[in-house]
Amino acid sequence: MKRRVFMKGAATAGVAGAAVAASTFSTPAIAKGKQKWIGVNTFGKAGLLGRAFDAFAKFVGEASEDRLSIKVYHAGELVKPFETFDAVQEGTAQIGLGAPYYWTGKSNAIQFVAGMPFGLNAQEQNGWLYQAGGLDMCNKVYNELGLQFLPCGNTGNQMGGWYNKEINTAADLDGLKFRMPGLGGEILKTFGVNVILLPGTEVLAALTSGAIDGTEWIGPVADRGKGLYKVAKYYYYPGWHEPATVLDCFINKKAFDGLDNSLRTIVEHAAAKTNLMLLSQFQALNNAAMDALINKEGVQLKTYSDELLQAIGKRATEVLPAIASKDKMSQELYDHLIAYRKTSVNWARLSEGAFIKAREYADL
Amino acid sequence: MKRRVFMKGAATAGVAGAAVAASTFSTPAIAKGKQKWIGVNTFGKAGLLGRAFDAFAKFVGEASEDRLSIKVYHAGELVKPFETFDAVQEGTAQIGLGAPYYWTGKSNAIQFVAGMPFGLNAQEQNGWLYQAGGLDMCNKVYNELGLQFLPCGNTGNQMGGWYNKEINTAADLDGLKFRMPGLGGEILKTFGVNVILLPGTEVLAALTSGAIDGTEWIGPVADRGKGLYKVAKYYYYPGWHEPATVLDCFINKKAFDGLDNSLRTIVEHAAAKTNLMLLSQFQALNNAAMDALINKEGVQLKTYSDELLQAIGKRATEVLPAIASKDKMSQELYDHLIAYRKTSVNWARLSEGAFIKAREYADL
Repeated sequence: MKRRVFMKGAATAGVAGAAVAASTFSTPAIAKGKQKWIGVNTFGKAGLLGRAFDAFAKFVGEASEDRLSIKVYHAGELVKPFETFDAVQEGTAQIGLGAPYYWTGKSNAIQFVAGMPFGLNAQEQNGWLYQAGGLDMCNKVYNELGLQFLPCGNTGNQMGGWYNKEINTAADLDGLKFRMPGLGGEILKTFGVNVILLPGTEVLAALTSGAIDGTEWIGPVADRGKGLYKVAKYYYYPGWHEPATVLDCFINKKAFDGLDNSLRTIVEHAAAKTNLMLLSQFQALNNAAMDALINKEGVQLKTYSDELLQAIGKRATEVLPAIASKDKMSQELYDHLIAYRKTSVNWARLSEGAFIKAREYADL
Repeated sequence: MKRRVFMKGAATAGVAGAAVAASTFSTPAIAKGKQKWIGVNTFGKAGLLGRAFDAFAKFVGEASEDRLSIKVYHAGELVKPFETFDAVQEGTAQIGLGAPYYWTGKSNAIQFVAGMPFGLNAQEQNGWLYQAGGLDMCNKVYNELGLQFLPCGNTGNQMGGWYNKEINTAADLDGLKFRMPGLGGEILKTFGVNVILLPGTEVLAALTSGAIDGTEWIGPVADRGKGLYKVAKYYYYPGWHEPATVLDCFINKKAFDGLDNSLRTIVEHAAAKTNLMLLSQFQALNNAAMDALINKEGVQLKTYSDELLQAIGKRATEVLPAIASKDKMSQELYDHLIAYRKTSVNWARLSEGAFIKAREYADL
C-alpha cells in the first residue's frame, strides 16, 4: 500500500520517465547507451551529507560524460527519510545514501557495519573495509537484501554527550532519561538508563522541556549547529559508543550488476572520494567547533572517569557478543570485525595514542 | 646533458610515439580526442606504491574509456627515482608519484607538504588539505614549479626507529650515527646526532656493518619487510618525526590545464581514491605486522621517555620555525599549517586520544 502511494507520488513529481528508464536498465540496449538513475538521500539537502550526495552525482555524470546520470532527491523530496532503503530495494530508486544502523529492522547484522561501541576509529574502519576483507563481509549482508554496499562517508570520532548533572559513577546513570540510538543505547540500558529514541529534529526541544535529561548527538560541529550547548551544561568525552560511524551508499544489486566496467569503477571511485571528503570535513570543522564551544560558548568540558569507562567497557564485553549471537550472519560479521580489532588496539596505542600525547610537547 | 641522455633512453624504450603525442596534448584537436600520458614513479614496481600507481592509471583509462591513458614507468624503468620530478617539470612525462620531501632541493617549502615533526596525523592532514584550504596553499608551491599537486597516498603514523642501545635521555643521542631524512633529522642534529642520509636499499647493510648505529624507516609492515629486526634490538615509539607522510601526485601544469572537465575530475578522483587506499593499506597491514614483530620476531618494544620527548619537542619549537623562515613561500605555508594544527591538538586529545585509551577497557 505504502509503495503504491509512493509510486503515484513519484509520477506526480515528474520523474516517471526516469523511473521507466531505470526499470529497464539491465537490458543490453540501455546498458550500452545512456542510463538515468534515481538517487534517494536519507539526509536533508542543506547539510554536509546533502551536498556530498549532490557532489557524488555530479562526478558520476561528468566522469561518464552522462553515460550514467543520477537525479538526486534529498530527504522527504521523493520518499520519507527512512523509506530510502525500501525504495532502492524495490528498484524504484537505484541508489541511496544513509547510515547502516538505520536499517537494523531489516538486518541485525547491519548495525555492526555502521560501527561499534569500543570498536574501530575511522581510519581503522577504512583499513578493515578496503584492505582487510571488511567490504566483502559487509556485502554479504547487503547482497542478501538485494543491495550493493559502498562506504560513502564517516563522521569520525563522536562526543560522549550532553548532561545537566555531573556523571561520575555508574550510579549517576540509573534512572537517567537519555537519548542514544543503536548499540550504545543497548549497553546503557543495563545501567538502568531510560534510553529514548528521538529523531534529530526533536532533540533540542526534548532537552529543553526536560523530556530527556541528556543526549548524545554527533560531535562539536553538528552539536554546536543544533544549539545543544544552550540547554545542557556539561559536554562529556570520549564518545565510547560511536568512535566513528560509516555512512552507506546502497545500490540496487541488479542496477549495480548491470553497469559496465567503466561505469562501475566510476561509481566506486565516487563513493571512495565521498567517504574521504566527508571524514575530512568533519575532521576540519570539529577542530574549530570544539575550540568555539569551549572558548566562545563557555561549555564545561568533562571527561568520563576511568571508573565509569571501565564499568561501561565491562558491560559492552557482555552485551555486544550477545547481540551478535542473534543470527549466523551477525556472528560471522562480528567475528571478522573483532579479529581485526584485536590487532588494531595495540598498534593504535603505540602510534596515534602515543603521538597525540607527545605532540603537546612541541609549542608550535 | 642529463636530459638529452634521458630522451635518447626514452626513444630506445619504445615510448617515442607516446612522447610525441604528449608533447602536443594542449592543442584542441588532441584535447578532444584520445590522449596518452607518460607516468613516472619514484617508487619501485613491486611494492604497495608501485601497485597503487598502476591501479591509478588503470582507473583513469577505464573511467574515461581511454580518452586519457597513462603508461606507467616505475622507478628506474625510464628515469632514475629522483629524476621523476624533473621529467614531469620538463614535460617529458606528464604525471609522477613521489613524496614531497624528496624535492626539498627544488623548494624549501615543499617539505612541509609531506608532513612535519609533531605536526598532523593522516586524518588531520586530509582535513587540512581537502577542507581547510591546504590543497590550494600547497599548489602555490607546486604551481611555481610548473606543476599541479594532488595528494595521492599517506603512510599514516610512522615508528620512532631502531637502535642497538637504549635511548633514555638526550645525552644518549650525542654522537649517535642515525639515519633520518628531512625535518626530523634537522632536529636530531641539534642533539649532536650524526645524521646520515641513505636510500632505503642501503639501510640494512649499513646497520649490519655498524656504519650507522640506528635508523628510522617507516612503520611495522615496511620495517619488517626490510628485516631491520634482525640487526637491531630495540624498536622505539612514537614516531614524533613523521606522524604521517603525504605522497604526492605531481602533474605537468600545462598537461593538467589542458584536460577537459570530465578528465580533470577523473584524475582528481583517482588521486583521492589512491590516497584513501594507501592509508588504509598501511593501517591494515601495520596492525598485523606490529603483532608479528612483537610476538613472532621477539622485538623489544620501547617508548621514548617523557623527558626525552619533552626535550625534542622543545627543540622542534625552535628548529621548525627557523626552517620555515628561510623564504616567503615557506613562511606562508607554515603559518597556514600551524594555524590549523593549533585547533587540531586539543580535539585530537579529546577524541582519538581519549578513545584509544578508553577502548582498552572493553575486552572484545
